[in-house]
Amino acid sequence: MARVVVEVMPKPEILDPQGKAVTGALARLGFDGIAVRQGKRFELEVDGELTAERIDAIHQAAETLLANTVIETFVVHVADEFVAEEASEGASA
Amino acid sequence: MARVVVEVMPKPEILDPQGKAVTGALARLGFDGIAVRQGKRFELEVDGELTAERIDAIHQAAETLLANTVIETFVVHVADEFVAEEASEGASA
Repeated sequence: MARVVVEVMPKPEILDPQGKAVTGALARLGFDGIAVRQGKRFELEVDGELTAERIDAIHQAAETLLANTVIETFVVHVADEFVAEEASEGASA
Repeated sequence: MARVVVEVMPKPEILDPQGKAVTGALARLGFDGIAVRQGKRFELEVDGELTAERIDAIHQAAETLLANTVIETFVVHVADEFVAEEASEGASA
């Protein structure tokens, strides 16, 4: 069982209405001077070993399904830990 | 200008219908043996220096606005690079 993370973000030249809304909400809550862009995070549990072909397939999957490459960029990372474990270790800073 | 990333994922014990839908779609496209959970990624550009108080404030912001801590966990990372730069460097594997 291998773990892979795909991170998808709107391209810099693309407007990000969700991020703008969050930025505005943060300012209204008193958190000033923070500009936010919002994207997606996918945590993948992959059966079997993580061969080069398997990573290529995940790349292809990210390109066809997880990201819309017209307006989004993505990166694929092999991961040791997922957010839930990191958070429970208190390594959240 | 400092950069901080907040990653938000559904807690392990919480059903994740979005992730389930993606898992099913991947299988139908021929990408077998991949289980997906979907969460959110926030890229924050923070004005000024990143003091301990500033990071505390971002933690608080994540807890109140970015994550629903009843059903989601989050981690806060200080980041060197955002996804767009990583992707353009071709460091996407």
